[in-house]
Amino acid sequence: MLLAFDSFKGSLTATEACSASAELLEARFGDRVRVVSIPLADGGEGSLELLRRGRKLVARSVPAVDAIGRPCVAEYLYSEDERVAYIEVAKVIGLPEVSDVELRPLQASSFGAGLLVADALAQGAERLVVFLGGSATTDGGAGMWSALGARLLDRDGVELQLGGGALATLAAVDIAEVAPSALAAEWVFVADVNAPLLGPTGAAQSYSPQKGADAVQVVVLEEALDHASVVLEERTGRELRTASGAGAAGGMQLFISAFCATEMLAGGPFLAAETGAIAALVDADVVVTGEGRFDAQSLDGKVVGTLAMAAAQLPTPPAIVVVAGDVREARTLRKSGKLGDIDAVFGIADSAAELAELQSQAATLVAECVAEAISLTLAARG
Amino acid sequence: MLLAFDSFKGSLTATEACSASAELLEARFGDRVRVVSIPLADGGEGSLELLRRGRKLVARSVPAVDAIGRPCVAEYLYSEDERVAYIEVAKVIGLPEVSDVELRPLQASSFGAGLLVADALAQGAERLVVFLGGSATTDGGAGMWSALGARLLDRDGVELQLGGGALATLAAVDIAEVAPSALAAEWVFVADVNAPLLGPTGAAQSYSPQKGADAVQVVVLEEALDHASVVLEERTGRELRTASGAGAAGGMQLFISAFCATEMLAGGPFLAAETGAIAALVDADVVVTGEGRFDAQSLDGKVVGTLAMAAAQLPTPPAIVVVAGDVREARTLRKSGKLGDIDAVFGIADSAAELAELQSQAATLVAECVAEAISLTLAARG
Repeated sequence: MLLAFDSFKGSLTATEACSASAELLEARFGDRVRVVSIPLADGGEGSLELLRRGRKLVARSVPAVDAIGRPCVAEYLYSEDERVAYIEVAKVIGLPEVSDVELRPLQASSFGAGLLVADALAQGAERLVVFLGGSATTDGGAGMWSALGARLLDRDGVELQLGGGALATLAAVDIAEVAPSALAAEWVFVADVNAPLLGPTGAAQSYSPQKGADAVQVVVLEEALDHASVVLEERTGRELRTASGAGAAGGMQLFISAFCATEMLAGGPFLAAETGAIAALVDADVVVTGEGRFDAQSLDGKVVGTLAMAAAQLPTPPAIVVVAGDVREARTLRKSGKLGDIDAVFGIADSAAELAELQSQAATLVAECVAEAISLTLAARG
Repeated sequence: MLLAFDSFKGSLTATEACSASAELLEARFGDRVRVVSIPLADGGEGSLELLRRGRKLVARSVPAVDAIGRPCVAEYLYSEDERVAYIEVAKVIGLPEVSDVELRPLQASSFGAGLLVADALAQGAERLVVFLGGSATTDGGAGMWSALGARLLDRDGVELQLGGGALATLAAVDIAEVAPSALAAEWVFVADVNAPLLGPTGAAQSYSPQKGADAVQVVVLEEALDHASVVLEERTGRELRTASGAGAAGGMQLFISAFCATEMLAGGPFLAAETGAIAALVDADVVVTGEGRFDAQSLDGKVVGTLAMAAAQLPTPPAIVVVAGDVREARTLRKSGKLGDIDAVFGIADSAAELAELQSQAATLVAECVAEAISLTLAARG
């Protein structure tokens, strides 16, 4: 069987959910059940740790700066054989890194993430996999592009200050000094959300408030990103505003997409493939997955939906079981026929309970529920 | 598959739990799952309704009196072929019947239940199955015995008043006027609890408070039952005080056991056998059972434990699944190895929730959980 949990936000990491369950299964069933654990994510924070399991990746620690320009050391992963770098923006310009100071939404910059990219290119990277999500920035990736040598200029030819706010006066981008390796690299952006760049569900309006923006700053950032994308589209003739995921990590892909070959992938399917989870479905008789809250979104490019869809395409699909903290929506989804590929959904609550109580006992509750489900599959097989 | 729920106290009858689940299974799986529904109970209130399903029993309505002597009409079931009467004491001398008046714990009497027995004997009953539990009385069945013609006398030969309080002055029992058919009948008492007659877990100390007894009245009733049992043991030479279940329904079996051939059965196994549930285990691949709260008691002669134990003795045991409102104890029971015969236990809570919320949605939550479990067994079988 395959254990492939997403995280239970606020309670458990994916790794914790898998290992608590694997331990209990081992203790209860021993040899009767062969357990393969592959913790997963939708991209975003924690992606690197998941990729690292069972793969030959070098972790490189590099001097960089956080979202407000303070020096720090950040890590990314590199495959020398494949010349691929895996960079998680949250690790360097993430919100937690600046949680000790007042957030500066207009000034926060992705420059530090660019320093990791520069190091990767210096190592010989030809493919750059950038995990979005969790950033403290809303600068369209302008800082990252600057860190690679680009000069962002206003109409007087003066270089812009860092941060999304300054993009309102963007008039030109000079890429004469950008390293050829950056321009030639294959860029892969892995998004944890489907947000578009602009509009009510976009980078500024939907995400900048959690990065400290007040109502006025949200408008400033929305207009700045809008303006910058117009300037870039005019300059390059490329369509930059509408891609699903373009709003992830403060619109991180905007400047890079204007000048480089980029791909935007959903984190769920990407990680499921890269970690070997998709391959492991073939040998699994039962797959147990889940997350904190199971709802319609779970089916949409997230871990659970990715596994269920991939499994359904196999000639002998494994049984798919979802174990989650909140499964209230499962009923509606079942009724509307949207859970066709998922065999069973179970909640972990073992009685009337407060959310805090469920969260504090999540590891045990998840493991118990997984073990009961596996016990049932064993019994059903006779 | 067999659906054989106990009731979810405060939320659902056993019949409701079974029918909500059966409906959803039918809607979701159609012909893929053949469902047999047999709602069960541990004895006590509601037992008659369960017995009635699919059996040729005549319901007889008889004039009687409730626990405080008010005229009423009560029903019992009779099998003319087998000459067996099924009498549920709660139907005539039950607590709900006297919920409109102040309870009179010392005076409340089982006389009304005796009137049903008398009618059954007049019909030709040779076996009397008396479901205990739910009575408003603590009179050791003295009233029932009086209704059949016995005279309970004090040392001056004066007949006692009805109710448990008066037993303190019992000196003799005159059975000259008791119908020979009552003395010759096989009496089967079906208890829903294991309580002994006396002591801290007995009829007076443990159960009379919920029948309105204050602290002083509890002592009076305890001493009265103690005294009556000594008088009866001296008169008959029978051991009457220690039987498990002797404390059920206010010690209902005490007087009858002194003079007649009686059997005391646990309600869970009795009903599981009489309703055909035990027989249905043979053909079932999966059995889903459960109740409001699943705990150590559930395994001890109750519905769940009865089914699990009976199933385990079959050459090809069905998978046993428990679906319950509160399954917190399952973890401890699992760890201590006590759930060996139960394959899976699932709680119905689909998120953090208040008890009232779970109760108000119980039918849906139970049915959903049953359907998910069945879906998993189907998937596991491939």
